[in-house]
Amino acid sequence: MQLSDFGKKLTSRSGILQLMDDIGRPLPASLKTYPLGGGNPARVKETEALYRREMERILSTDDEFENIISHYDAPQGRTKFIEAVASFFRKEYGWNITEENIAVTNGSQSAMFYLLNLFSGTAEGRKKTILFPLMPEYIGYADQGIEEDTFRSVAAKCTYYPDRTMKYSLDKEAVEKYLCEHDEVGAIALSRPTNPSGNVLTDDEINMLSSLAHMHSIPLIIDNAYGLPFPDIIFTDNAAPIWNEDIVLSMSLSKIGLPAIRTGIIIARKEIATALSNLNAIAALASCTMGQVLSERLIASGELVKAAKEYVRPFYKAKAEKAESCIRKYFEGTEYYIHKIEGSIFLWLYLPSLKIPTLEFYSLLMDKGVVTVPGEYFFFGSESKPYPHEHYDKCLRLNYSGPDDLTDEGIRLISQLYRKYS
Amino acid sequence: MQLSDFGKKLTSRSGILQLMDDIGRPLPASLKTYPLGGGNPARVKETEALYRREMERILSTDDEFENIISHYDAPQGRTKFIEAVASFFRKEYGWNITEENIAVTNGSQSAMFYLLNLFSGTAEGRKKTILFPLMPEYIGYADQGIEEDTFRSVAAKCTYYPDRTMKYSLDKEAVEKYLCEHDEVGAIALSRPTNPSGNVLTDDEINMLSSLAHMHSIPLIIDNAYGLPFPDIIFTDNAAPIWNEDIVLSMSLSKIGLPAIRTGIIIARKEIATALSNLNAIAALASCTMGQVLSERLIASGELVKAAKEYVRPFYKAKAEKAESCIRKYFEGTEYYIHKIEGSIFLWLYLPSLKIPTLEFYSLLMDKGVVTVPGEYFFFGSESKPYPHEHYDKCLRLNYSGPDDLTDEGIRLISQLYRKYS
Repeated sequence: MQLSDFGKKLTSRSGILQLMDDIGRPLPASLKTYPLGGGNPARVKETEALYRREMERILSTDDEFENIISHYDAPQGRTKFIEAVASFFRKEYGWNITEENIAVTNGSQSAMFYLLNLFSGTAEGRKKTILFPLMPEYIGYADQGIEEDTFRSVAAKCTYYPDRTMKYSLDKEAVEKYLCEHDEVGAIALSRPTNPSGNVLTDDEINMLSSLAHMHSIPLIIDNAYGLPFPDIIFTDNAAPIWNEDIVLSMSLSKIGLPAIRTGIIIARKEIATALSNLNAIAALASCTMGQVLSERLIASGELVKAAKEYVRPFYKAKAEKAESCIRKYFEGTEYYIHKIEGSIFLWLYLPSLKIPTLEFYSLLMDKGVVTVPGEYFFFGSESKPYPHEHYDKCLRLNYSGPDDLTDEGIRLISQLYRKYS
Repeated sequence: MQLSDFGKKLTSRSGILQLMDDIGRPLPASLKTYPLGGGNPARVKETEALYRREMERILSTDDEFENIISHYDAPQGRTKFIEAVASFFRKEYGWNITEENIAVTNGSQSAMFYLLNLFSGTAEGRKKTILFPLMPEYIGYADQGIEEDTFRSVAAKCTYYPDRTMKYSLDKEAVEKYLCEHDEVGAIALSRPTNPSGNVLTDDEINMLSSLAHMHSIPLIIDNAYGLPFPDIIFTDNAAPIWNEDIVLSMSLSKIGLPAIRTGIIIARKEIATALSNLNAIAALASCTMGQVLSERLIASGELVKAAKEYVRPFYKAKAEKAESCIRKYFEGTEYYIHKIEGSIFLWLYLPSLKIPTLEFYSLLMDKGVVTVPGEYFFFGSESKPYPHEHYDKCLRLNYSGPDDLTDEGIRLISQLYRKYS
C-alpha cells in the first residue's frame, strides 16, 4: 500500500492531531487531569438554553425536524441561513454583501483548508505561498498545505511591560518588504483574535494589511473564530468587525456553543464565495445543516450577537482574569510573561528561564495530568529551523475555559515544574 | 486573484455541482416541477420516527443535549459511536474489526475525497491512478482527483434482455489485464449498488475484485452508501455485506434518513482508518457529531438495520416497481432499455434512438420542469473522448423516490420528448 505525496503529507503525525487526540481521548481514569490543552470552549448556559429552545421549537413545529434532516442543502449552504447571515451583516454593519458573498462549510477548519489551498501550491508551474504576517499562529493551519513548503511567515514583534505582560504586534516593515519582494504570495492569512496568543490585531493593523492585500491583488484571510460580532471573545476596545472586498472573513459557531456541530461561515467577494461552494460540492457534497438551523433565527433576530456580548464575553473575561491571577499567584518570583489577554480562550505564557524545550516540558506535565499545548507547534512558515523567534520553545498555550479549581491547580503544577526546570 | 492548480481544478463547473444546484435551488414558482434529478432520498416515516425519538430522549435526559453540542469529538469520530459500530459488525457479521478499523467523516463524499486522493496523484515522482472497474459510475467521484487525469476506468459490459431490461457486468478480463499492465494503479473503487445504474455487483464479482486488490497490494474501495446492512436498498439476493483487510468500506447515514446531517463511516484496515483520521484532523478538525448521536443506539440495538430491512427496502422496492411500470406504460412502442433495478434509488434509462445528446435532452426537460441527470457525467476515466461506451450520451438517471404522481407525470413528459427526438 503506497500513499500519494498528498496522502503522506496530510496523514503524518501533525500538531493538530496530537491536540485533538488530547481532547478526544480520556487519560487513565486513575490520574486526576487538568484540562488546559485543546481548544474546546466552555459550556455557557445562556447560549445552550437558546439552542435547546430552538431544537424544541423545531421538534414541536409540525414536521420541521423531519424536513430538516431529510434534505441536502445546496453546496453553498442552507438558503434560509445564508439569507439570514447576509441580511444581518448588511443591516447591522452596513456591509455591502448579498447571499452570493456567503459560503457555509463543515466548520471553519474546513474553510481554512479550502482557502489556504485555493491560494497556495503550484499555479501554472510556479509555487504560490500563503503569508502569515504574525507568527506565532494557529497550530491547525501548519499542516493544511497540500503541497510541501508553501507557507511563509513574519515573526511577531514583542513589547514587554513592567507588569509581566507582553504584546505581539505586526512587524509592518517586514511584512511590506516581504510582499514587495515575493510576488508569489497568493494570500495573507491570520486569526483575529490570534490563536494561540490571545493577541487582537488592532483596526489599524488590519487596515494596513487590507491595503497591502488590495495593492498586491491578493485576499486577506481573517479567521474570526473567536471574534466579532460573535462569539465576541474580545476584551479590547480597539477592534471592530470589518469586511471589505479584499477580506475573506471566516466565522464559526464553535466558540458560541456548537463545536460538535461543525459550522463555518465565510464572507468573501462573490468569486471566492462561489469557488468555495464549488469546492465544497466536490469535496463534501453539502455541509451539515444542523448548526445552521439552530442558529438561523438567533442570527436574524440579533439574539446570538446579544448573547455573545451579554454572556459569552463576560464569561470568558472572568475566566481570563481568574487564570491571570493564578499565574501571578503561583509564578511569583520566577521569570515569566503573560501575553495581554485581549481575546480568544487562551493564555499564552512565556517562560524565558525554561531549560528544556516546551515539547519536553509539555510531556512532563502530561505525566502529572496537566494537559497543555507546547508552543513549538504554533511557529511555522520559516526556512530556518528552529523557528527564529526567542519564544519558539519557551511558550505554553493554556486554555483557561475549564473549571476554575482545575485551572488553579493546573497552573500551580505548571509553576512547580517550571521552578524545577529553570 | 490567481487560484492554484488545485483551486482551478476543484472549483470549475463540475457535474456534481450542477446536480447539487438542481437539488438545492428552487425552480421558478410558476413552473410545476418533477423531481427526478439529484440524489435526495425520500422521507421514510418509520426511520424519521426513530430519529425523532432519539432526539427527544436526548433532550429529556438531564443535560445530554448540551453535553453533546458542546464538545468536539476526536478526529476519528465519537468514541461511543465507533464502539457501537465496531461491536455491531463484529457480532452480527463476524468481521474481525475493532475501534481502530473505523473512521467517521462529514459524509461519505468527504470520505471518498480523502480516499481517492490518498491513493492517487503523484507519489515519489510517479503518477498513481484509481481504477473504476465498472463505468458508468457515480458523478460525484469524477472531479474529486486533486491532480489532473488520475482516474482510469473499464467500461461495463452490458447484457440486454427481451423484456427491455439490461444489466451491466464486470469485464473481468479487461480489469485483470489493466491491473497487470498498470502497476501505477493505487486503488480500485466502485459503488455498490452502483450509482447511477442501480446495478449490484454480485458477491462473485466483488470477491474477484478483492482477490485482484490483494494480489496487487492495493485497496478495493467500496462505496456502500445504498448497500448492506443499512440502508439496505438492495433488491437482489446475490449480495451480502462483505469486508476484509483488502476492502475499504464506506458507509453513510444519508440514505437512511439523515442526508442533511453528513455522516460517513469507513471500515478499513487499521493503517487506512488511522490515515483517514489524521487527514480529517488537518482538513476538518473533527466531524459533525449529530448523526452519530442520533444513530448510536439504533445501530447498537440492531434497530437501524431492522428498520432498513422492514421499512426502507420495501419502501424503495415499491417505488422502483411503480417507476418501472410508468416507463413501460409511457415508453411502449419506443426503443428503450431499463437497467435491472437491483438497488439504489435510481432508474437508469437507455434511449438508443435519441437523436441529441442527453446533455441537451436534459436541458429541454428542465424547461418543462422535469429534473433529471444526463448520463454523460457518469462516464469518466478514459483517455478517449467522448467516452467509448455506446450508452455514453444516451442515458438518463432518474431518481424514483419522489411522489408517485410526479414521477408518473415526469416520466410521461420524458417519453413524449423522446418520441419527438427519436
